[in-house]
Amino acid sequence: MNPIEPSATSPEMVWSGWGDPARRRPLPESASAFLKQEIGWSGRATLPVALDAVRLRESALPPESLALFASIVGAGNVRTDRECRVVHAGGKSYPDIWRRRTGDAESAPDAVVFPNSHDEVQSVLSLCAKSGVAIVPFGGGTSVVGGVEPLRGRFSSVIALDLSRMRRLLSLDAQSHVAILEPGLRGGEAEALLATQGMTLGHFPQSYEYASIGGYVATRSAGQASTGYGRIDDLVTAVRVATPAGELRVGRGPASAAGPDLRELIVGSEGTLGVITEVSLQLHSRPHKRAFEGWFFRSWREGTQAFQRLAQEQCAPDVCRLSDADESRTNLALAGLSHAKERLLNGYLGLRGYRGGCLAIVGWEGTGSSVKVRKTASRAVLASAGGLRLGASIGNAWEHGRYHGPYLRDELMDRGIFIETLETAATWSGLHPLYDAVRGALQKTLAARGTPPLVLCHVSHLYESGASLYFTFLANQEEGAELAQWRAAKTAACEAIVSCGATITHHHAVGTDHAPYYPQEIGALGVAAMRAVKTTLDPHGILNPGKLLVQSI
Amino acid sequence: MNPIEPSATSPEMVWSGWGDPARRRPLPESASAFLKQEIGWSGRATLPVALDAVRLRESALPPESLALFASIVGAGNVRTDRECRVVHAGGKSYPDIWRRRTGDAESAPDAVVFPNSHDEVQSVLSLCAKSGVAIVPFGGGTSVVGGVEPLRGRFSSVIALDLSRMRRLLSLDAQSHVAILEPGLRGGEAEALLATQGMTLGHFPQSYEYASIGGYVATRSAGQASTGYGRIDDLVTAVRVATPAGELRVGRGPASAAGPDLRELIVGSEGTLGVITEVSLQLHSRPHKRAFEGWFFRSWREGTQAFQRLAQEQCAPDVCRLSDADESRTNLALAGLSHAKERLLNGYLGLRGYRGGCLAIVGWEGTGSSVKVRKTASRAVLASAGGLRLGASIGNAWEHGRYHGPYLRDELMDRGIFIETLETAATWSGLHPLYDAVRGALQKTLAARGTPPLVLCHVSHLYESGASLYFTFLANQEEGAELAQWRAAKTAACEAIVSCGATITHHHAVGTDHAPYYPQEIGALGVAAMRAVKTTLDPHGILNPGKLLVQSI
Repeated sequence: MNPIEPSATSPEMVWSGWGDPARRRPLPESASAFLKQEIGWSGRATLPVALDAVRLRESALPPESLALFASIVGAGNVRTDRECRVVHAGGKSYPDIWRRRTGDAESAPDAVVFPNSHDEVQSVLSLCAKSGVAIVPFGGGTSVVGGVEPLRGRFSSVIALDLSRMRRLLSLDAQSHVAILEPGLRGGEAEALLATQGMTLGHFPQSYEYASIGGYVATRSAGQASTGYGRIDDLVTAVRVATPAGELRVGRGPASAAGPDLRELIVGSEGTLGVITEVSLQLHSRPHKRAFEGWFFRSWREGTQAFQRLAQEQCAPDVCRLSDADESRTNLALAGLSHAKERLLNGYLGLRGYRGGCLAIVGWEGTGSSVKVRKTASRAVLASAGGLRLGASIGNAWEHGRYHGPYLRDELMDRGIFIETLETAATWSGLHPLYDAVRGALQKTLAARGTPPLVLCHVSHLYESGASLYFTFLANQEEGAELAQWRAAKTAACEAIVSCGATITHHHAVGTDHAPYYPQEIGALGVAAMRAVKTTLDPHGILNPGKLLVQSI
Repeated sequence: MNPIEPSATSPEMVWSGWGDPARRRPLPESASAFLKQEIGWSGRATLPVALDAVRLRESALPPESLALFASIVGAGNVRTDRECRVVHAGGKSYPDIWRRRTGDAESAPDAVVFPNSHDEVQSVLSLCAKSGVAIVPFGGGTSVVGGVEPLRGRFSSVIALDLSRMRRLLSLDAQSHVAILEPGLRGGEAEALLATQGMTLGHFPQSYEYASIGGYVATRSAGQASTGYGRIDDLVTAVRVATPAGELRVGRGPASAAGPDLRELIVGSEGTLGVITEVSLQLHSRPHKRAFEGWFFRSWREGTQAFQRLAQEQCAPDVCRLSDADESRTNLALAGLSHAKERLLNGYLGLRGYRGGCLAIVGWEGTGSSVKVRKTASRAVLASAGGLRLGASIGNAWEHGRYHGPYLRDELMDRGIFIETLETAATWSGLHPLYDAVRGALQKTLAARGTPPLVLCHVSHLYESGASLYFTFLANQEEGAELAQWRAAKTAACEAIVSCGATITHHHAVGTDHAPYYPQEIGALGVAAMRAVKTTLDPHGILNPGKLLVQSI
């Protein structure tokens, strides 16, 4: 087949928040009262500054340097205009967005370079290595851990290497269910291309509409249906990587016992070892049927026990999410149900003894008959574990809004609200202590600063040995100390995670935010091994300075 | 829990072949005629020399060196006696066994050291690094690729580090289905210990009765039921490793996005980066039910298409094996069926139009109800793809003899027969070209040497994107040129695999036999990255010289 490109694409991301502002939905009326009651919201509004008011340094790259980049990628593909530099001044974490909204893009890259092929990437790397320019590989720009912050390390200039022109389906082996995709394809674009071939990747992170294939791989991501389809690390069969030391191709599908698996060095390398230019991915037949439904449990403990059984009795749905009581309550409050509907639901839950309990969303994908068989098996476990089936409408409502979370954050930030998410994972035996520790750390730290938070949590992915926990927390912004407030909460949560022996991240990656905790996770000798690989592939250290392994450690 | 040891263990391996000679079964009477007809067997017998006649160099380690090892592990745990050195003079590959049978153990290690803990291993590594002694980590000693050949590299002496005393179940997290095991536990011993806790690892390579947990991990192994339970790389959640540079602990279960997955550097490292001293493994509930059955397909192509559907329609049995026509015919001939039974089976197959076709063995494990549901789904696909169900008795016969293959090899080697196995994997679209290429290369090469072979093959593991191919071939030994004959056949097969772009090994590992082909598989930069890690963890290069990455490449 000839390489094919997506026929349509999402609008570019707004520089001051998430996605396409036209797709934001206003908060329901009930939200204000809820926020006042829960976190003492003051009712204030805090809108972003105008783009022209954003502070930006002059580009440190002189015209002759820019001309050298242009000689590789073409003149129109080296940009230094304000909007482009501001958009690439960071990712989509709370501090990233907060800085840009308040007019700070001082750290913006000196230029944004848009290559169109592996060879162009390779040439850009050579040029940067020779001229001492740091490079931040930039896919969808959706990092929520500072992964695309344009740090320059010991170099005087930095470019963002935006891969959005590399957005082709290069080949498809329909018999073997394997496709080779370019890194700049966004999740939705890739799915649309694969759908024309009757296939799916089955990877649906909340950032799906903007995150890129290369970003999935570089950050070792998981999606909402990864309990069924597997994490991206399960789906990558091979990668082609441009490194300052040359080309690296790793992966020999479908399985191999030939030494260590070097794919696993690239998956999760966060642009610090090389730039991923092609990804070979394991696909599935496109599901004929998707079914989602809501269940309710009397308690968090009852719900997690049910989910443990699903995983260990090999009948987990593809999507498995279990909210704690606070998240269940909050989701219902922010769903904008009519008073009548809300009363009806609460009445029903109360009658059945489930009031104040926990909402689970489960979903199955596949052929009609496989969904039927698997649904029967899952339902039997959920019911026998104490679950109350609420039916498809609540499941479909979740499915309908599954990518809407980041828009909601923009709405809340417009109201002076601090909102952040973080995630980790633990074995089943360690899940409750981890939950208590992280929740407690966030509550205590933010209460001590005078901004008591609302802390929400859900189990988002199941494994036979454990599950992930995904926390969302919101509080009034601490006016004048917004970043200090964020830092305090983030530090408290990370320290709680580390003290439980859990991983600092289940699917958001390390970036800059988790870099201080990463060395503890792999130990001194693990760090030394990683450094040895880094020095081999990127001897000058031009790739994504300050991410993953901070040089000074 | 306190660490527990297995209550019983298999007898030690015989030095001249496989396992416990008392468990060998004589070839059925029909076998002689079959071998004469198929490979022109001469009828000669070639028995191993007596142990006393095996040539062995004096140990290069002086008593004062041995005393230093003894000061770490205890005097009785440093052995230099003839039998122990000969047993550790190699693994269980055809050339390994052929050399020892014919009296050549010249390369035997200078001593065999038996540590009993991580700390003892660490101390032995320090001593070896300081005194310049090479180390060959030795688990079950079942390598069939030269993985435990006692090469000394640039050192004047070499020890085998036998881990068989480290055979404890250290801990079990029953809620999370995770156990920590010591590396020296044999497969069967580990299963027996886990069975007392209601759990299984589900890893059943043909070497299961002797292979060790550490060996599974070091060689990235797969077992007969890995289509269902996953390969060992899917089951390892963490490892503790003693390296000359210190202790390395990697793995943070159940899943993490914190950087590259360093577990995957240790899995498959074949003792070249460190000695695995603890393995944390994902378990499953012990199955209540195991069901095996035989199916027949009219052709290899029809059978592989059926297996492809099983994998891609998510209804593959846990055990999936499909023999080509020659292997099907051979297995029936060597099964020792009575003439009446054989006639009956062939008559039935002929009547149904399946004569000369391909035998498949499939098996399911789990709860009674899950086996029932899954069996129904698998059978529907097998039948609609053209399969003929032969029923449970042929499946049970396979299950009964599943670990017997290596004993059969001893029987054949006693008859002057060259018999070897090798394996690879490919995507579904690449499977038939690979099959034709390897089979053709073996046939052509051995026919040209005057020893036309019988080449057998089966599909042994299924993945959504492809499958593994396992070849067995036998021919008359080329008297006086047995190793040259082996080398020629092995080289031809490996070159055929490489020219198809397939992996040089799906589950046997690299060892010395595949080391010449490994660099091509990971590329020059992959080799450089591996060397960088090796230099970091084993700066003096004392660990398993000549395996995986040969220094001179």
